[in-house]
Amino acid sequence: MTDKLVDELTGDLTGGLTGEPTDELTVDFEPLGRRARVARGTTLLEAARQAGVGLNAVCGGAGTCGTCRVRLVTGAVTPPSEAERDVVAEGFRLACRARVLSDVRVDVPPASITAPQRAQIEGLERPVELDPAVRSFDVTLAPPSLTDLRADATRLREALREQSPPLNGGGRFDHGALCQLPILLRENGWHIRIVILNDEIIAVAPAGAALLGLAVDIGTTKVAAYLVNLESGEMLAAAGTMNPQIAYGEDVMARIAYAMAGQAQARELQRTLVGGLDDLAGELCARVGRDSAEIVEVVLVGNTCMHHLVLGLPVKQLGLAPYVPALGCSYDLKARELGLRFAPGANVHLLPNIAGFVGADHVAMLLATGLHETHEITVGLDIGTNTEISLAVDGRILSCSCASGPAFEGAHIHDGMRAAPGAVERVRLIGERVEYQTIDDAPPVGICGSGILDGVAELRKIGVLRGNGAMQPGSHPRVRGRGKDTGFLLVPAGEREAPRDLVINRKDVNEIQLAKGAIRAGIDMLLEEAGLEAEQIERVVVAGAFGTYLDVGSALAVGMFPPLSRERFVQVGNGAGSGAKLALLSRRCRRVAGEIARRVEYVELTTHPHFVAAYTAALMLPEPTGNDEEAPRP
Amino acid sequence: MTDKLVDELTGDLTGGLTGEPTDELTVDFEPLGRRARVARGTTLLEAARQAGVGLNAVCGGAGTCGTCRVRLVTGAVTPPSEAERDVVAEGFRLACRARVLSDVRVDVPPASITAPQRAQIEGLERPVELDPAVRSFDVTLAPPSLTDLRADATRLREALREQSPPLNGGGRFDHGALCQLPILLRENGWHIRIVILNDEIIAVAPAGAALLGLAVDIGTTKVAAYLVNLESGEMLAAAGTMNPQIAYGEDVMARIAYAMAGQAQARELQRTLVGGLDDLAGELCARVGRDSAEIVEVVLVGNTCMHHLVLGLPVKQLGLAPYVPALGCSYDLKARELGLRFAPGANVHLLPNIAGFVGADHVAMLLATGLHETHEITVGLDIGTNTEISLAVDGRILSCSCASGPAFEGAHIHDGMRAAPGAVERVRLIGERVEYQTIDDAPPVGICGSGILDGVAELRKIGVLRGNGAMQPGSHPRVRGRGKDTGFLLVPAGEREAPRDLVINRKDVNEIQLAKGAIRAGIDMLLEEAGLEAEQIERVVVAGAFGTYLDVGSALAVGMFPPLSRERFVQVGNGAGSGAKLALLSRRCRRVAGEIARRVEYVELTTHPHFVAAYTAALMLPEPTGNDEEAPRP
Repeated sequence: MTDKLVDELTGDLTGGLTGEPTDELTVDFEPLGRRARVARGTTLLEAARQAGVGLNAVCGGAGTCGTCRVRLVTGAVTPPSEAERDVVAEGFRLACRARVLSDVRVDVPPASITAPQRAQIEGLERPVELDPAVRSFDVTLAPPSLTDLRADATRLREALREQSPPLNGGGRFDHGALCQLPILLRENGWHIRIVILNDEIIAVAPAGAALLGLAVDIGTTKVAAYLVNLESGEMLAAAGTMNPQIAYGEDVMARIAYAMAGQAQARELQRTLVGGLDDLAGELCARVGRDSAEIVEVVLVGNTCMHHLVLGLPVKQLGLAPYVPALGCSYDLKARELGLRFAPGANVHLLPNIAGFVGADHVAMLLATGLHETHEITVGLDIGTNTEISLAVDGRILSCSCASGPAFEGAHIHDGMRAAPGAVERVRLIGERVEYQTIDDAPPVGICGSGILDGVAELRKIGVLRGNGAMQPGSHPRVRGRGKDTGFLLVPAGEREAPRDLVINRKDVNEIQLAKGAIRAGIDMLLEEAGLEAEQIERVVVAGAFGTYLDVGSALAVGMFPPLSRERFVQVGNGAGSGAKLALLSRRCRRVAGEIARRVEYVELTTHPHFVAAYTAALMLPEPTGNDEEAPRP
Repeated sequence: MTDKLVDELTGDLTGGLTGEPTDELTVDFEPLGRRARVARGTTLLEAARQAGVGLNAVCGGAGTCGTCRVRLVTGAVTPPSEAERDVVAEGFRLACRARVLSDVRVDVPPASITAPQRAQIEGLERPVELDPAVRSFDVTLAPPSLTDLRADATRLREALREQSPPLNGGGRFDHGALCQLPILLRENGWHIRIVILNDEIIAVAPAGAALLGLAVDIGTTKVAAYLVNLESGEMLAAAGTMNPQIAYGEDVMARIAYAMAGQAQARELQRTLVGGLDDLAGELCARVGRDSAEIVEVVLVGNTCMHHLVLGLPVKQLGLAPYVPALGCSYDLKARELGLRFAPGANVHLLPNIAGFVGADHVAMLLATGLHETHEITVGLDIGTNTEISLAVDGRILSCSCASGPAFEGAHIHDGMRAAPGAVERVRLIGERVEYQTIDDAPPVGICGSGILDGVAELRKIGVLRGNGAMQPGSHPRVRGRGKDTGFLLVPAGEREAPRDLVINRKDVNEIQLAKGAIRAGIDMLLEEAGLEAEQIERVVVAGAFGTYLDVGSALAVGMFPPLSRERFVQVGNGAGSGAKLALLSRRCRRVAGEIARRVEYVELTTHPHFVAAYTAALMLPEPTGNDEEAPRP
C-alpha cells in the first residue's frame, strides 16, 4: 500500500469521525457495562444496537411484542404511551419506544437480551464476605550462612511460626510449590509470598503477587468460567464455551455409554474436557493480561456425570439403576492430577453431589439463590436436558430430577437448532400476523428452544392447538397438511432470506409437551411430597441458560409451571456458576454447600407410585387465557 | 532345528544329569541361601564354587591368605591345623582347609565374598516390631438399593466408622484409589481390602490381597532395592543396579552441573532415575510373581543430591556454599508425582536429610546400626565418593562429610576399574611373591578399590612405600621406573591371561593417601569436637558397598582408621538400605529417624580452623606393624 493511499484512507476515516453530532448523550447499559453516545431523541433500542447490546425485538421495534423491556435506572426518557403501558409491567419500558432526553443508565434484564450475549453475563450476585479457602502471606527469611544451614523448607516453616500472630499452618508443602521454592527464594532476595490452603503451602510467588481463582460450571452442553482476583474478590473476566465432549454424545447417557466402551475412551472424554477448561482459562487470563499459572484455586460444579467425567471417575454405575454416584461429598484434589495447567500446586474444589442425577451444579444453584435459607415457599429449577428441581418449605429442601430431554436445546425438533445466529428465538402470533426474531438478526435458518416454546404457546393462545397438542386444520392460513403431517409454517422460504421453510409440526408440539410435562410433573410430585398446593408457591427461581432465556409467559401458557402470577418468577441466569463463584470466595459458602447437600431430601421420581399419573396429566396444554402477560390466578 | 537334533541334544543333557555321585552331603551357605551337594571330604571352598558362592581365595586355596574365612553353624568338618589357627580368629575356619564330614551349614561373612555377590546381600538385620505406616483392612459393604442411594465413597466411609473398633481414619481418598473404587466394589461383591496411610485411603484391592512395600537406597553409583511383604514383614527379593544417572556424570558435582544446565536437563536426570527405579521394582516383583501395581509404599533414602534429584528439586544451591538443602525433614508424596508406576495411590516416604552433604542415607545407616542408642563410643562411616562419618558419644551424635573422592571406585587410578569381573580385588605380598585375586576369577584387567587399598597397604608393609607415599627404587624386584614414574608391577601382561601390565604407580598411592586422609581427618575432627582420643573409640561400624568389602587390616595399615584392634570393627553391608527397610516396616523407626536427624550436630569441615592441619597429618602412611591381623594397640 502506498503512503498516498494510506493518507487518503485515513483522511476519509478522520473525516467520518469528525462528522459526529455534537449534542451527544450517554446511554449506559447495565449490567453489561456497554455504553453508547447518541443524539437526543434516539430510542434506547437504537442506542443498544450502537452499543453492541443484543436486545430482543420480535416485532422489529413496533412496540407490540414487549420483548425489548428494560428498566430505567437514572436519567430521563420520553414518557410511555397508553399502548406501551398495556404491553409492559410497571417499572419497565419498551426500549423501542423510549427516547433519550438526557444521559441515562438502563438495566437490561437477562430475558431481554439475545441468547449468545446472555450466556456471557452474570447470574445473580449475592454479596459475600471475602474469605477464600486459600490465604496468602508475604514473608522475609534470613538468608542461609555458614552458621545457619537450615534447609529452605525448614527456614520457611520456622519463619511462619515466628510471624505475629504465629502462623502454624504451612506444615506441609505441595510438591510443585516445594520444587519452585529454592529458586524463587534466591531470585527474590528471600522475600516471597506463600499461598496456604488448610495446612499446606500450595504455591509460592514473588512478594505481593495477586492470586487468581477460577469458578467453572461444566454443563453437558456448555461450560461457563469466571476468573476472580482472590485478594479483592473482583471478577476479572467471564466466558462461556461449548463443552468439547459434545463430539462424543449430546446428552449424559451418550457420554456414559462412550466412557463405558473402555478405559481409553473414558480417558479421552476426561482429557478433552480438561483441554477445553485449560483453553478457556488461558483465554480469560490473556484477556486481562494474566497467566493460567497464577491460578491457585478452582471451584468446579457440574451435574453428577460431568463431575465424574472431569475427575476421571467411572460412570457406568451412573447409567444403571439405582444410579449411585461414586462420590457424593465435596472433594479437593490437585489441579495437576486432572491435567490442568495452573499453578503447580493449584487446588480444585468440587462441591458435593446430591444423587446420580442431582449434582454439584444444583447444590451451587441452591447456594446462589439462597433456597436453603428462604422463609418463602420456593421452587428452584435448573432447566436443561436434565432438569433439577428443588422445593424449599419450612426449612426442608426436597429435590428431584426429571428427564426433560433435549427439545429445549433444539434437538428432536423438525427445524430445531441450538441458540446460534439465525435461530428463531422469539415468536409472537397476532391474529394472522406472524412475528419473530432471530439471533443476531441473521436470516432465519432454524428454531431454537425458546422459539419453539414461544411457538407452541402462541399456537395454543390463538386456538391452533388443542389441549392434547393436536393441530387443528383450517384454524390458521399457515396451517398445512393433515393428521400427523399437520404443520404450522413459521417462516416461508425466502422471507428475510430464509433458505427454506421453517415449520412447527405436530411432533414438535409433542416433544415440547413431553419436556414441559416432565418438568411440571416434577414440580407437582415435590408439592405432593411436601403436602402443598401449587398456589402456595410464593417464588419460582428459574436458572440455567435456557431457564433464563425462556419467556415465562410462554412457559406458563404451555403449562410447564403451575399457573402463578408472573411476578412470582425470577430468572437468575447461571445460578450454578454464581454458586461456584461464591464457593471460591468464601469458606462459609463451602460449608453451607455441604449442609445443603446433606439436608436435601432426594425424591426418586422413576419409582414413585404417583409419577406416571402426574406426568400424564402434565402433558396437556392448558386452556389459553386472555391476558398474555398474566397467567390465570387460581 | 529338526526334531532329531532336539532329541539328540536333550538326550545328551539327560545323560549328563544322571551321572551324579551317590554318596552326597549337603552344604548350605548362609545368609545367601545357596546349597551344594558334594562328596564327603570335599573342601568348603570347592563346595562354595559348586554352589555359585563367590568366596575370596587370594592364595588360591593354599591356606595362607585367610580371605576365605567362614563360620561353621552346624555339622562336622575336619579340624583346623596349627597353621590354620595362626591365620584365622577363633570361631572361624578357612574354607580351603575344612573338608565336609556331614551335612553342614556355614555362615559366610560379607568380607569373604567377592564384590558382585556382596552387593546383593543384606546388611545387618535389626529385629523390628512390624508396624508399617500403611495399614489394611477388609470391609464388606451393603450394596446400594432404591432405599439406600449413598455414594460409593460415603458408603465405604460409613462402613469404616461402623467397624469394631470404629475406624475413624479413611476420611480422605487418594484420587487414584477413588477412581478404582466403584469398579472394584462391584467386581468383588462389595467385599474389598482398603489400605490406609494416616487419614487417607491410598489403595483399594480385592479382599485379602497382600500388600507390597519397597525400600530403596539410591547411591550416586548404585541403587539397591528390597521388596517386602508389608503384612508379614518378610523380605521377598532384593536387587542392585547401577544408578542410570551415571551416564550424566560420575559424581554428585557432575550431576549438579548437568541439572543446572536447564529445566529439561534436570527433568531428564529425574526421569532417568525414576525409569531405573521402575525397572528395578518390576524385576523384583516379576521374580516373585507379583506386580509393581501392588506396591503401596516406598521408602527412599539417598545422599542429599540423589534425594533432591529423584524429587525433581533444584540442586543448584547444593553445589554452592553454604550447601543448603531445599528440604531437610522427612517427606511424603505420591509415587505417581515422581512418575513411579506403582499402585495409583502409592506413597513415597523420604527420610530426613541432615545437611547438604549428609543425607537421608546416612540417617538410615545410623538408624540401622543403632548409633543413636548405643552406650559405646562408636564411629559409623558410610564410605563412598563422599564419606559420611558420625561419632556417637554420651548421647550426642556428631556428623561430618568428607570428599574422599572416587579412588575407591577405581577412578583416577592408573589401572583402576569398578568392582567388576577381572578386577583385582585382593592383594597379598609375601616376601617377593605377589598373590592376588580377581572378581569371578576372570583374567585380570584392572584394579578395583579394595585391590588398590590392599596393594598400598601391602607395599607399605613390605617396605616398598615410605611414610610419605614415595616408592623406594630397588626395594622389590617388581618396582620399576624412577621418580614420578616409579611403579609396582602387580600383574605382568600375559599372567593369568592378563591383556596388559597392571601397575600401581606413585600417583595411585597419592590418590589413596588423599582418599584415606580425608576419611581419617574427618574421624579426627569429630574426635576433637567431642574432646576424645582415638583409643577411646570402642566400636567402628563401616557401611556401604566398599566399606563392607575393604580389608579392615589394609585400611588400618594405610591409616584410614585410627590404630584400633580389629575386633572393634564391624562391617555391616548396606546400612542405608537396611535403614530404609526398617522405616518401611515400622512407624517407630520413622520417628526415630526424625529424632536422629534433629539430634545430629553437623560439623562443617571445610571451614573448620583445624581441618587443614588434620588432613595434612592424615595423609601419611603409618609405620608398618609386624602383625597383619592386628593393628598396634596404643
